[in-house]
Amino acid sequence: MASITFMDCSSSTTARLFPFTRTTFRHNSVLFLRRLVRPLSMRSTSLRTLTVGSSSVSSVPAINAAIGSEAGAKVIDGKLVAKKIREEIAAEVSRMKEEIGVVPGLAVILVGDRKDSATYVRNKKKACESVGINSFEVHLPEDSAEQEVLKFISGFNDDPSVHGILVQLPLPSHMNEQNILNAVSIEKDVDGFHPLNIGRLAMRGREPLFVPCTPKGCIELLHRYGVQIKGKRAVVIGRSNIVGMPAALLLQREDATISIVHSRTKNPEEITKQADIIISAVGQPNMVRGNWIKPGAVVIDVGINPVEDAKSPRGYKLVGDVCYEEACKVASAVTPVPGGVGPMTIAMLLSNTLCSAKRAHNFQ
Amino acid sequence: MASITFMDCSSSTTARLFPFTRTTFRHNSVLFLRRLVRPLSMRSTSLRTLTVGSSSVSSVPAINAAIGSEAGAKVIDGKLVAKKIREEIAAEVSRMKEEIGVVPGLAVILVGDRKDSATYVRNKKKACESVGINSFEVHLPEDSAEQEVLKFISGFNDDPSVHGILVQLPLPSHMNEQNILNAVSIEKDVDGFHPLNIGRLAMRGREPLFVPCTPKGCIELLHRYGVQIKGKRAVVIGRSNIVGMPAALLLQREDATISIVHSRTKNPEEITKQADIIISAVGQPNMVRGNWIKPGAVVIDVGINPVEDAKSPRGYKLVGDVCYEEACKVASAVTPVPGGVGPMTIAMLLSNTLCSAKRAHNFQ
Repeated sequence: MASITFMDCSSSTTARLFPFTRTTFRHNSVLFLRRLVRPLSMRSTSLRTLTVGSSSVSSVPAINAAIGSEAGAKVIDGKLVAKKIREEIAAEVSRMKEEIGVVPGLAVILVGDRKDSATYVRNKKKACESVGINSFEVHLPEDSAEQEVLKFISGFNDDPSVHGILVQLPLPSHMNEQNILNAVSIEKDVDGFHPLNIGRLAMRGREPLFVPCTPKGCIELLHRYGVQIKGKRAVVIGRSNIVGMPAALLLQREDATISIVHSRTKNPEEITKQADIIISAVGQPNMVRGNWIKPGAVVIDVGINPVEDAKSPRGYKLVGDVCYEEACKVASAVTPVPGGVGPMTIAMLLSNTLCSAKRAHNFQ
Repeated sequence: MASITFMDCSSSTTARLFPFTRTTFRHNSVLFLRRLVRPLSMRSTSLRTLTVGSSSVSSVPAINAAIGSEAGAKVIDGKLVAKKIREEIAAEVSRMKEEIGVVPGLAVILVGDRKDSATYVRNKKKACESVGINSFEVHLPEDSAEQEVLKFISGFNDDPSVHGILVQLPLPSHMNEQNILNAVSIEKDVDGFHPLNIGRLAMRGREPLFVPCTPKGCIELLHRYGVQIKGKRAVVIGRSNIVGMPAALLLQREDATISIVHSRTKNPEEITKQADIIISAVGQPNMVRGNWIKPGAVVIDVGINPVEDAKSPRGYKLVGDVCYEEACKVASAVTPVPGGVGPMTIAMLLSNTLCSAKRAHNFQ
């Protein structure tokens, strides 16, 4: 779990991007369970005709990216969209079972006793159950040999009832993460982190087997809210392998003009202010201020950062990379934290597992 | 060969980026043989301590990227740098032969009777000979079966005297280019186009086995001229799999802040003008005008485009994507066309082949 930092919008006066090593994003999936303290209604936006894994713009009333909104930003309700997607997945899983007698299966390997990892795995398992996907769990002790993990991966690779394999990170320090992740069959790499998948994502005319869950969730939110991507300026803040970089590649595949802002960028606010679409994934609480945002831009906030909050019984609250109150005054639409991108990650994991099963059985 | 277009700096008043399908870039290698009609001297820049495949900034006097030069731009002399690199490669090939008795080998497969392809293959062969690399050539008739090509690839994959395999494109239309390119062993993919190589190039903490030759040549020119990349704004114009996209990934690996301009970008000139480093690879003659360039920027022009020229006995001359005369007045450094990036492509192919042989034999 990321350490608690102490920063709110008012104190974050100096914009700085730090090289980030935190694993917050990978574990976003759990956070969708938390309730948004001050829920904002999604005004004049109803969701209809949503389709699983849709890559086309759905027929929800479009948010007009980069066109100002005097009355404040629309809230992009990830919790609501994720719920809808999970319902769609449940329907598809059920149809698949009825028609060809196959149930998609997700295997999760957990090594060691980290409480946060155990929680994430438990939530993934619950999510699978809720849509009818079989889940398989292996829990190995902290001092297991790398070989032991590889043996289980190999078993799941060969098991036709398993369509997705997920190794919960971080692994104990004596293990080589790269070796272990590389051992997962590309056909079952539902995380989409295999370099072959990333290469295909980067290349025009190639198709990845899986798209990493969090960036896929970001783009899905844009689609479901009818945000036009083609021809728009998009700025991705952060260049991690699991969010920033694949998010930029996805936006480019949809004909956005992308710029990638990172810890070595000298004028992040100036570049960010040119964007019609902002995706921030750096793990810096309230870093993106209102004056970084072009009026009317659409803001997708991937960061989930704990900050001190004396009013909370826990002593902290969760905030995004974006100063939400300020963003609401400038942007045309914005994701809250929590309740924005977080819930989408696990929905996309379920979607990837379903897609994998469909592909394996040539089921349309 | 790209068709001859009729555009000079003065007539190119409307900036437009077209989706490009031409294969110009892949065949750049031959063009280094042409002489620059109006050579510009490389003032106050001497090359020293150059190293083969160096990825660090060499100790040549630095061009101060993004700092204006009243006296016009320095010319980045790709022909001179490529010559130097080939000398370095020849020395390494010779040392390898002496010390372990191994000679690097490059296999080229040519299918059909395209004259341009035959010329490119002949030039690659000559280049190999000039540095002491063995070359193997297979020339198959136009109506060969895909299986026949795959058989030769398989043979070269298994042949320990072959360290690089190159399939000359375009292939006849009845063949599946993707199938054929995918058949080349990743350890011998000296073109660097395999999605696994591209994926590793995109990912932090991963290393590609090979970097595509033309973008590698662009970055090598920046290194050899001491252009600082870290922290600079870089704009890549064009997003092709073989130049634009990998060039952007390479710049990002070196901590530039990248933006990628393409045919769907609405305001290419405005974005390009923010760049300290511009790499243009679109195949549009003289598209990048002087007013697209920030004073003091470094400009790498990958385009090689034929335009009408009544004064030439051939009736045309070759120009870049960048209006050279205008760029010279604004930029701090610029590559000419021809004689800029072109000669670097084949030098990088030789470099990749040498690296492959060294890796195969664990030779430092």
